[in-house]
Amino acid sequence: MIHNFSAGPCILPQEVLKKASESVIELDGHGLSLIEMSHRSKPFVAIMEKARALVHELLGVPEGYTVLFLQGGATLGFYTAALNFMKSESGRAAYLDTGTWSSGAIKEAKLLGDVEVIASSKDANYNFIPKDYIVPSNADYLHFTSNNTIFGTQFKQFPKSPLSMLCDMSSDIFSKEINVADFDLIYAGAQKNMGPAGTTLYIANLEKLGKTGRKLPAMHNLAAQHEKESMYNTPPVFAVYVSMLTLQWLKDFGGVKAIQKRNEAKAALIYGEIDRNPLFKGTTAVEDRSNMNATFVLHNEVHKDAFDALWKGAGVSGIEGHRSVGGYRASMYNALPIESVQVLVDAMKELERKA
Amino acid sequence: MIHNFSAGPCILPQEVLKKASESVIELDGHGLSLIEMSHRSKPFVAIMEKARALVHELLGVPEGYTVLFLQGGATLGFYTAALNFMKSESGRAAYLDTGTWSSGAIKEAKLLGDVEVIASSKDANYNFIPKDYIVPSNADYLHFTSNNTIFGTQFKQFPKSPLSMLCDMSSDIFSKEINVADFDLIYAGAQKNMGPAGTTLYIANLEKLGKTGRKLPAMHNLAAQHEKESMYNTPPVFAVYVSMLTLQWLKDFGGVKAIQKRNEAKAALIYGEIDRNPLFKGTTAVEDRSNMNATFVLHNEVHKDAFDALWKGAGVSGIEGHRSVGGYRASMYNALPIESVQVLVDAMKELERKA
Repeated sequence: MIHNFSAGPCILPQEVLKKASESVIELDGHGLSLIEMSHRSKPFVAIMEKARALVHELLGVPEGYTVLFLQGGATLGFYTAALNFMKSESGRAAYLDTGTWSSGAIKEAKLLGDVEVIASSKDANYNFIPKDYIVPSNADYLHFTSNNTIFGTQFKQFPKSPLSMLCDMSSDIFSKEINVADFDLIYAGAQKNMGPAGTTLYIANLEKLGKTGRKLPAMHNLAAQHEKESMYNTPPVFAVYVSMLTLQWLKDFGGVKAIQKRNEAKAALIYGEIDRNPLFKGTTAVEDRSNMNATFVLHNEVHKDAFDALWKGAGVSGIEGHRSVGGYRASMYNALPIESVQVLVDAMKELERKA
Repeated sequence: MIHNFSAGPCILPQEVLKKASESVIELDGHGLSLIEMSHRSKPFVAIMEKARALVHELLGVPEGYTVLFLQGGATLGFYTAALNFMKSESGRAAYLDTGTWSSGAIKEAKLLGDVEVIASSKDANYNFIPKDYIVPSNADYLHFTSNNTIFGTQFKQFPKSPLSMLCDMSSDIFSKEINVADFDLIYAGAQKNMGPAGTTLYIANLEKLGKTGRKLPAMHNLAAQHEKESMYNTPPVFAVYVSMLTLQWLKDFGGVKAIQKRNEAKAALIYGEIDRNPLFKGTTAVEDRSNMNATFVLHNEVHKDAFDALWKGAGVSGIEGHRSVGGYRASMYNALPIESVQVLVDAMKELERKA
């Protein structure tokens, strides 16, 4: 058995994989594969509607918000977010810079207007979440990244902002309860807690769209996508279907509240061992540790080969750290069972015994 | 058995569906599902490279061109095409208007510069391909749509142009031989002849990129996508994999030349019956008939119920015409066997006998 700690695309529930696999041969007795039927067919329209409804239900999306399954990943979303919310004339936005994805969002927004980076932890290799900043009152919006996969930090409390808040939640959406009404836009690539790579979720406050004075390209126009019920053009059928199955799995699990509890238990288990075990140390500020991606290093690289042999031997996969941090990164998305974290913790304990 | 004439997403080879289904459980003995492994893993990088290499091989893509598997469908491509080729200052482009997709491309290009529609068949409900036009020498490029799925027309000869040619080939790429060097950009949604919905192929002449004076958003920047080997961000893993399998199937079939011969035989079979059978007539100019989408109507609607019962009874699926044309549309993409066309033709003959 493989314990899949991949940072994304990442582990999905086995029952989801089974049903997804079957659908590629034949969808629910319709006589055709999911991927060779029209996206305007009744079965697929029902899938899209169910996926959107599950997002509404699981996150408690308020009235007046739209839920869309689009394409392009969060990187296209960086630009889409700015296009839909930054004013055409004298556009100005505030950004928090907490890592690679924030930086990417800032780069795209700069194509469209003035960007003020009101706080950054770049000088500390992004090992904490800035808390000491003032959100200007005269910008069009505040943008931030809720969880930083590479550096292993996560907002435990969201900013208080007088502005519209826009958030890239790619790597922790559906992992914990949030109040959608605090945001005018949430967007997230599917390939962590929601499904496979290939679709990107947008949750937008409809009354705040169409206010920038810009003429938008069709695919970037969230209001137009809403009017077409998330099918302005052919949607990424398979990715939407598997996302729907994963959201159904989450609902059956007990919803976001229940998975949050398990995610907190998984995080407590690994961080507990990182702090207890004299051979390891965490790489981030303790109060900003991500419940999704735990980053840690060996105090002494002399143990590297022995540790790598131990976790690989135990069936653990995908914990090599990103090159910008080094060491190890254990990504513990929704579908990862706590038993897998225990296997990794046991390997860490075993190293201590042998060292 | 279902004879799948869906206009897209559409029929794919059975052996492709089988292998795709297996990969969702486990990819080629790697112990993980295709959709839960990192896109930077060796197995997926090899898949992406093989998909790109197959496009090079099957279409004879010349040196100096890049092949990319991106997202967003041709509708995002309309904007991407214009962004990469229309000059920032005094940008001007020539477009041929042959239907719904051309119109969409024109709409997006108008956001970026002057668009001259040099020919249109709109007044004739797009039932022919304009041939009488002059391509201006002072525009940045000429854009057209090679095949019009809705109206059932297709360019049998491509325009002669002194300008860069940009072409949306979504619905007939890989169906016949083309000379890629005649174009500076070809783009195509995958969901007809190439694979499932969710990825979009771009083939671009590298030396013509980066010449507009525009600063481009990352995901629209074809030169940047090329530098990142088609993985600027997480690609749509499943759609790329199934496209690779479908291209491999096409290669095993004998390549584009061999499938072109079968596509011509399928088209000859259906159009032969449309012309012979006194109950039916085609809706387009004979010389512009699409080999991919045959559109036809009953002379007399009184036979509609009887005909619908006949083809449905024979297992034919997906030939209802688009609402803007009415009647019937038989989409005969690469994976449709000629036997399925024969079944439809037999139903047309049966109607004649009974009428």
